[in-house]
Amino acid sequence: MALVLDLNDVTRATDMTSMIEAVEKGLREEAAGRVVMPPRLNMATDSGFFRVMPAIMNESGVMGYKEFHGSITNGVRYMIAIYDAAEGSLLSMMDASYLTAARTGATTGVATKYMARQDAKTAAVIGSGLEARTNLQAVAVVRKLDKVTVFSPNPAKRQAFADWIKSELGIEAVTAETAEQCTAEADIIVVATNTSGKADPIAYRGAWMREGMHVNSIGSTMPRLREIDPDTFDRAQRIATDSVAQIHEESGDVITAVEDGKFDAGRVVELKDLVTGAATGRTAAAEITLFKSVGTAVQDVMAGMAIYEEARRQSLGTEIPDFLDLKTF
Amino acid sequence: MALVLDLNDVTRATDMTSMIEAVEKGLREEAAGRVVMPPRLNMATDSGFFRVMPAIMNESGVMGYKEFHGSITNGVRYMIAIYDAAEGSLLSMMDASYLTAARTGATTGVATKYMARQDAKTAAVIGSGLEARTNLQAVAVVRKLDKVTVFSPNPAKRQAFADWIKSELGIEAVTAETAEQCTAEADIIVVATNTSGKADPIAYRGAWMREGMHVNSIGSTMPRLREIDPDTFDRAQRIATDSVAQIHEESGDVITAVEDGKFDAGRVVELKDLVTGAATGRTAAAEITLFKSVGTAVQDVMAGMAIYEEARRQSLGTEIPDFLDLKTF
Repeated sequence: MALVLDLNDVTRATDMTSMIEAVEKGLREEAAGRVVMPPRLNMATDSGFFRVMPAIMNESGVMGYKEFHGSITNGVRYMIAIYDAAEGSLLSMMDASYLTAARTGATTGVATKYMARQDAKTAAVIGSGLEARTNLQAVAVVRKLDKVTVFSPNPAKRQAFADWIKSELGIEAVTAETAEQCTAEADIIVVATNTSGKADPIAYRGAWMREGMHVNSIGSTMPRLREIDPDTFDRAQRIATDSVAQIHEESGDVITAVEDGKFDAGRVVELKDLVTGAATGRTAAAEITLFKSVGTAVQDVMAGMAIYEEARRQSLGTEIPDFLDLKTF
Repeated sequence: MALVLDLNDVTRATDMTSMIEAVEKGLREEAAGRVVMPPRLNMATDSGFFRVMPAIMNESGVMGYKEFHGSITNGVRYMIAIYDAAEGSLLSMMDASYLTAARTGATTGVATKYMARQDAKTAAVIGSGLEARTNLQAVAVVRKLDKVTVFSPNPAKRQAFADWIKSELGIEAVTAETAEQCTAEADIIVVATNTSGKADPIAYRGAWMREGMHVNSIGSTMPRLREIDPDTFDRAQRIATDSVAQIHEESGDVITAVEDGKFDAGRVVELKDLVTGAATGRTAAAEITLFKSVGTAVQDVMAGMAIYEEARRQSLGTEIPDFLDLKTF
């Protein structure tokens, strides 16, 4: 039997602490050379895009892929399928709309764990959407926050987000009227925006950076999308990413920083090397650090497996007969 | 609602005549530049392989992928998922074990239609497995056969296959005791073997070729698999394939022929150019022609769509709620 999980099932089966552990486990496996993950396939359709990103986790014994398609204007559908790597049976197919935001958050959690100051206590979030929430949730797992400041251009949305932080995370939350004010005192920043179509797509600027802070940038996962300026890369003394190859292909922020000569490749490390200690996320309290997220199939497959296991424990989802025949030769 | 189709549903929804039409339609669309099909992803796992092959058919308005994984020794599972290309909704997920054999047959049908002599009447099949059957079925759709000779090393299997041809296709069928005898008089040959592990993996030899014949070779879709010798490529005056790029990457037969200096790239055309008339499959009755099949996602997606439409007509399969949420921004 294979387990089909819809948005509601996936949301109920998401536990941010175990998802951060799952993503970190996947990163260690990647560092150990036990992962097969080809560059993801990004295809253009007449009306949007179609992407497929598989990963094989030989150590964890799970393999699968995420597929997502649609367009920013018409909406996007996401699906993750996971299989038992040794036996080959289909374990689960699940909606990966919320899951993608959650695993992106979990990855930010891992980055923040290894890059932010141990005594970081305050966070600022630019953006109020789903990714803003999941990323803050993950930051709150890895650092004990006592205050969060939020900014979003829409006053009602930022207030609703602050209310959610208070009620859901139990952390003091206030709103700010500008992005600069929002981030003025925070130890940890989350930039999680979709500024496409805005006159100024830059939501966070390097000019606002201060000593000792850590910035996570989640948006700009396509060449035409932007959210942070080249100065942000220039002022960060240490930059981590989940995939060096991918950020150069896919992130408009990185492409622009490279064009402006403000992207020093020598400062860039991969997250997988932070978790094993092969690279260091922060060498001094005063250092400015930056995590630029693009998302990888390792995160999807590991998060999908965590969701599947939790869904089994909670008896969530719909069982369907295993419809895949085993062809022997 | 999405339609889940298992092996039984897919088998019942397969009609070889409409599948040949669907594959040919896909090839025309490919020739017209209305298809997006990146090289397929071939990944190795600890115990086998995992392949993902997507295609977007912008003209037909369908997109999707085939995923298959396992190993020749442990068995393989195949799945095709298709989506409405414009709207994005998941239409169907189906077992693609039989479907893969059927669409490979349908593609051979297209090749035979454009390459075999119009008056071809006799066929020989080397192999007695599922691919042997589906490929012969397709040949019988595009040419009026009055006799089929079959060879397979196992006498019981070749007799069972001959009996099947008589009862299912209504064509006179006899068995032969060697591959050479089997093919000695046939106008159209189908080589559809899995000779891995055999002392001699070559099932068909160029030395046996005669004027005016057309040969279809279906096996050897991985570098380590073989079924025809370099002389077969050398003696064929016209060679067609479904993907020039792929045969060089994936077919052990082609790789070996190239190494032996017996592969003349100037004789090679793609199937998509045969169906539009941009290339000619046969220029004289005496010509020897060869189709080397590797399989593409265009064939899978088009065949999957044909199956889906027929399954809807016959009310086959299991409806599941559309579990993919539409995320809007």
